[in-house]
Amino acid sequence: MQVGKPILYSYFRSSCSWRVRIALALKGIDYEMMPINLVKDGGQQLAIIEYLEETRPTPRLLPQDPKKRASVRMISDLIAGGIQPLQNLSVLKQVGQENQLTWAQNAITSGFNALERILQSTAGRYCVGDEVSMADLCLVPQVANAERFKVDLTPYPTISRINKTLLALEAFQVSHPCRQPDTPAELRA
Amino acid sequence: MQVGKPILYSYFRSSCSWRVRIALALKGIDYEMMPINLVKDGGQQLAIIEYLEETRPTPRLLPQDPKKRASVRMISDLIAGGIQPLQNLSVLKQVGQENQLTWAQNAITSGFNALERILQSTAGRYCVGDEVSMADLCLVPQVANAERFKVDLTPYPTISRINKTLLALEAFQVSHPCRQPDTPAELRA
Repeated sequence: MQVGKPILYSYFRSSCSWRVRIALALKGIDYEMMPINLVKDGGQQLAIIEYLEETRPTPRLLPQDPKKRASVRMISDLIAGGIQPLQNLSVLKQVGQENQLTWAQNAITSGFNALERILQSTAGRYCVGDEVSMADLCLVPQVANAERFKVDLTPYPTISRINKTLLALEAFQVSHPCRQPDTPAELRA
Repeated sequence: MQVGKPILYSYFRSSCSWRVRIALALKGIDYEMMPINLVKDGGQQLAIIEYLEETRPTPRLLPQDPKKRASVRMISDLIAGGIQPLQNLSVLKQVGQENQLTWAQNAITSGFNALERILQSTAGRYCVGDEVSMADLCLVPQVANAERFKVDLTPYPTISRINKTLLALEAFQVSHPCRQPDTPAELRA
């Protein structure tokens, strides 16, 4: 392992790890990956993304305009603080096997109802205007979680459209859970 | 109501509103308050605080050093994304009256276990070094929630010590839930 090269402690399926992998790919930062089968709660990985943004500003993941930056952060916090923490593994375990699917679906649909309305006023090609931002890094992994929990995405045309556009980008593909070193064989693509 | 004066839609008890009230008090920003009896999920109010930081940089709520900024954001996200969303009103409602107290206590103690360890390496007088930061804005409202849910704070000496120091500051007092326009008479202090 090269001295000074950043190490990402990553879990293939974790939406938090995936967000960071997209940021690293977009900024072209070379790193070692240390797969760990342990998922930390919450949106703490946004701190890594903000750190990357400040120390490697190109390409930027936050728009220059303060109001647009606030929109990006509002969307990111809605997903990383308002949706993901309610449907992560440790919470689902507490909820009990019987109620897991309904619980996760409720958390995601109530968050997506708010998100769809917000995106209708902020989105261009991506979540906020036509530049890929931190909000997009949060969106794609959350939509993948929604699909895993069989959430009907028909009521969310804006979310679905942006997700599809983003998944066509290289940085979102190389960072995808189906292409990680710790992805089990049956989930590889 | 004066044109151009910012309006804060606030709920006296919401820890998310309280964080923003502290930021406004620290930065000396005059605002109108519009009390609403409706609490939004998650850490979305951090977007307001980041926006305030960018448009009113003095006094700063994020340290200048990128590593310290990352510590501040990690602590803020742990609280606003990892603890608060699990014990807010709408989640407790879903959990059911019988299990609410245990659920909230579990969410808070598991978060505080992580937080206490982090603070032991970052704290000075406050959460990160000797300057009040966004992390402190998140800490005080979360400790108040812990007290409401009767969490034993003995295992958290660093959290308790910083909380006490912060509560002595004017900005934390004027923004306190017991002194808001919508605070019910029996909770006033």
